Amino acid sequence: MTQGLFITLEGGDGSGKTTQAALLQEWLESEGRTVVRTREPGGTPFGVEVREIVLHSREHITPRAEALLYAADRAHHVATVVRPALERGEVVLQDRYLDSSVAYQGAGRVLDAAEVRDLSLWAAEGLLPDLTILLDLDEDAARRRLDAANKRFDRLEAEKAEFHRRVREAYLGLAEAEADRFLVVDASLPPEEIAKVIRERLAAAGVGRTA
Amino acid sequence: MTQGLFITLEGGDGSGKTTQAALLQEWLESEGRTVVRTREPGGTPFGVEVREIVLHSREHITPRAEALLYAADRAHHVATVVRPALERGEVVLQDRYLDSSVAYQGAGRVLDAAEVRDLSLWAAEGLLPDLTILLDLDEDAARRRLDAANKRFDRLEAEKAEFHRRVREAYLGLAEAEADRFLVVDASLPPEEIAKVIRERLAAAGVGRTA
Repeated sequence: MTQGLFITLEGGDGSGKTTQAALLQEWLESEGRTVVRTREPGGTPFGVEVREIVLHSREHITPRAEALLYAADRAHHVATVVRPALERGEVVLQDRYLDSSVAYQGAGRVLDAAEVRDLSLWAAEGLLPDLTILLDLDEDAARRRLDAANKRFDRLEAEKAEFHRRVREAYLGLAEAEADRFLVVDASLPPEEIAKVIRERLAAAGVGRTA
Repeated sequence: MTQGLFITLEGGDGSGKTTQAALLQEWLESEGRTVVRTREPGGTPFGVEVREIVLHSREHITPRAEALLYAADRAHHVATVVRPALERGEVVLQDRYLDSSVAYQGAGRVLDAAEVRDLSLWAAEGLLPDLTILLDLDEDAARRRLDAANKRFDRLEAEKAEFHRRVREAYLGLAEAEADRFLVVDASLPPEEIAKVIRERLAAAGVGRTA
C-alpha cells in the first residue's frame, strides 16, 4: 500500500494557492495517486458552520475565541477527513493549516505564537504536514491581484496592509524555523514555473516518476 | 467601590441550579449588590450560535472539537461579560463554568482532564471563581427529577447513567482538590435549606449582612 502524503499550501489571499493546488492535483493523479483536495477552515460541514460564525457573527469575536473556533474546525477536520485519507494511502492536498493559524492569529494579532501553535497541535493530535508549500508574495502584489479580480474583501481580508506585512514576515519565519518541511516559492513567478518547482521538490522526495 | 464577586453553580441537569441561582440573586440584591445572571455555554449571542452547533450539528462532533467550541464560548463570554461586570464591582452568578468542562469532557469523555482544564484556563486568561457551589445529586435522583419534569433529553442528557455517575465522581474529585473554592451541598435537601447553607457560606466570607 502506498504511503499517505500530507501537503499543505500556505500564503496570503491572492497568492495563487488554488491554481497551484489544481495543477499539483492534476500531476499527482497523472502519477497514479488518489488526491483529496480540502481546506481549513471549512473543510467539513461542521467547519462551514464554524467558518460562518467567524466571518459573519453579529458580535466582534475576541482573538482567543476566534483562535479556539479555528482549532475546533481543525480538530474535527483532521479526525474525520485528513487522517482517514492518509491511512488509506492517499495524498491530502490542503489549502491552509496550522501555519495559517500561527501566522494570522499569533504574529498578526495579539496572541502568543507558541501558544497558538500548541493549541493547533492539541487539536490535531500532533499531525504535521509532510510538505508545506509557501507561496510568498509581498503585500502590494497580493493587493493588486485581489483588486484586479475585483474580489469582495471579507473581514479578515479587509485588515490593513500593515497586517499583511506582519503575516508575511511570520510565514517566512516559520519556513526558516522548519526548513525541511517548507518549500518557499516566489508567487510572482508564472504559475507553470511555480508548479514545476513544486513537482521537482516532490520528485526529489520520491513522489511520482516525472517532474 | 465594592469588590466584584464571581460565583459559579455546578452540578448535573436537574440538580436545582436555576432555583438556587434565583434564590441567591434575590438575597444578594436585598443586600444591595448588583447581580449579573449568566451561563455557559450560551451566555452571549456568539455563545448561542456555538451552542447551536454543539447540540444540533448534522455531523457527529469529535470530543476535541467539542471541547474547543466550549472553550471558544468561554473565551468570548469571560472577556465580554464576566470580566467587565467584575470590574464594575458586581456579582456574577453563573450557571456552569470550567468545572463543567473538566467533569463532562475530561472525566466523562475520552480527553485528559488536566488538558481540558488548561484549555479552559487559556480561554479565560486564568480566571477562577471566588466560590463554586456544587449541587450534588446522585444520578438516580437526577434522572427522576428530569423525568418528573417531562423534560426532553438533548444529546448530552441522553448519555447513559454510567456517564452521569462518572461526571458526578469527577465533580466530587474537583471539589476535594480545591476545597477552599468549592461549597458542596446535598441537592436532595429542600431548596430553602440549600439556599440557607449558601447564604451562610457567603456571609462567613463577609458578603452581605444577614444570612
